[in-house]
Amino acid sequence: MKKYGFGVDIGGTTCKIGLFETAGQVVDKWEIPTDTSAQGTNILPDIAASLLEKLKEKGISKEEIEGIGIGIPGPVDGNGLVPMCVNLGWKDVDVPKEMQSLMEGIPVKAGNDANVAALGEMWQGGGKGCQNLVMVTLGTGVGGGIILHGQIVAGANGAGGEIGHITVNPHESIACNCGRKGCLEQYASATGITRLAKERLAKEHETSLLDQSDEISAKAVFDAYKQQDKVAQEIVEKFARILGSALSNIACVADPEVFVIGGGVSKAGAPLIEAIEKYYREAAFSSCIDTRFALAALGNDAGIYGGVKMILE
Amino acid sequence: MKKYGFGVDIGGTTCKIGLFETAGQVVDKWEIPTDTSAQGTNILPDIAASLLEKLKEKGISKEEIEGIGIGIPGPVDGNGLVPMCVNLGWKDVDVPKEMQSLMEGIPVKAGNDANVAALGEMWQGGGKGCQNLVMVTLGTGVGGGIILHGQIVAGANGAGGEIGHITVNPHESIACNCGRKGCLEQYASATGITRLAKERLAKEHETSLLDQSDEISAKAVFDAYKQQDKVAQEIVEKFARILGSALSNIACVADPEVFVIGGGVSKAGAPLIEAIEKYYREAAFSSCIDTRFALAALGNDAGIYGGVKMILE
Repeated sequence: MKKYGFGVDIGGTTCKIGLFETAGQVVDKWEIPTDTSAQGTNILPDIAASLLEKLKEKGISKEEIEGIGIGIPGPVDGNGLVPMCVNLGWKDVDVPKEMQSLMEGIPVKAGNDANVAALGEMWQGGGKGCQNLVMVTLGTGVGGGIILHGQIVAGANGAGGEIGHITVNPHESIACNCGRKGCLEQYASATGITRLAKERLAKEHETSLLDQSDEISAKAVFDAYKQQDKVAQEIVEKFARILGSALSNIACVADPEVFVIGGGVSKAGAPLIEAIEKYYREAAFSSCIDTRFALAALGNDAGIYGGVKMILE
Repeated sequence: MKKYGFGVDIGGTTCKIGLFETAGQVVDKWEIPTDTSAQGTNILPDIAASLLEKLKEKGISKEEIEGIGIGIPGPVDGNGLVPMCVNLGWKDVDVPKEMQSLMEGIPVKAGNDANVAALGEMWQGGGKGCQNLVMVTLGTGVGGGIILHGQIVAGANGAGGEIGHITVNPHESIACNCGRKGCLEQYASATGITRLAKERLAKEHETSLLDQSDEISAKAVFDAYKQQDKVAQEIVEKFARILGSALSNIACVADPEVFVIGGGVSKAGAPLIEAIEKYYREAAFSSCIDTRFALAALGNDAGIYGGVKMILE
């Protein structure tokens, strides 16, 4: 094993980059803008230039680099090919091949960003020490990443871990962004929690801290929940019942050692985890009833950690 | 790779055994009774005696055997340990260790029978050529086996692929064998289909072939369905909607290349697959909408095939 590796997390606005020792320590991390003009053709060259500059700055030779692992905001097949990535303007991009030629032969791997983040959390985060985990990212949407036997489950169609689109309510009348109705994401994302809150507040209710909120948001709901606000408790319980029950079904498929909960909503911390755990255990199949829950520990850096971990295999 | 391997499928009544060439051909297959007396302590010695006798009969030396792969009717951890197997009377049995010592050092692996059968179908059956599949066994219950990257997903608690216990109806009032309510198994097993049929026939309905059946069974339902019986169509559609929708959720987790449908109910053949597929595609997330469905091809031999495949890795 060589001494260093790069992890890159390409987003629609910025690319996060980390230089790591392959033993796990960050040496340096930084960001560059993502240039989505010209069908995103500048993105990989810009990253390559930034990596080469960093090597020069640190006096590290290319021979000391084990590889480069890259997370992409869209589906990626098992060979690192990106058939289509709307956020970057890409179509049929062979990330390992293009990047490797830009980096004079340094090995490159690529994966879906949510899956790569899950791998990062397994390596140095909330799932450290595990080989089997399900990461749940509660942000604007609900993302997921599944690691089994220490490997990303990319899926035959790049849809491995797309748990936000599990149908949890066949009777829903409002459509999800994916076009279907009743997806987990419609209830368990920050947007979903806000919707549950607005629906509840529109009905008759006792006085709530949320009545005085300037803006109803997932954060406002959890802030009120922590102050034992009754209405916020109802909202959080509805959210937690839906999510906990969906995770109990995922356990009947993948049976992970741990569920790692991340994303913006996870800033609510331990009370969030406790609420999800409660409803998970009520719903779970007996063999999986004790599955552990953990908060994600790497925040926005999970992707660069996971990128490095990808090339260590 | 040595020339031969053994696959063993231990059931509560009989053990199925196969001698295979490791290239995939069956050389011989046979059964012995499962002796569950004395906490099942005779089971592994009986199997070992039968294997040694077969080697003698065929004039094959132990040095020509790659290994022995064994399917167990209960949870098995990643190392082949069986914490508890009610059907066999076992508690804390280290199958590879015990069997290996009985077989004078031939390597032994063990796995849960449903998972091992899935591996068999991947190797030489309905999923041949795939590395990622979900096998669904529609029998008295609903079993499942998941293979990703060519490996069994055993799960942290041996519950990988326990898809029969996914909750599909939180409003169910009748309990499943597992003690919870609304499990997939309550609707999609042979028993479940029979129940759906009896419930439907108890309500007002137009004349049906099922009215003349001596016994309502899944087979009777599918026989009537194939003759365009309206009531049978309603029952099959309800079953297929529940199962197809559950499989669409599994696709958002594991995203397999193919769903392989086996078990007694699968004898209904192509019309069964078509019904499940129809509702799967209606419910599926866009990326997985074209996932293939196939009938299991190995029948009761899937377990012995999978046993051999286990030891080839």
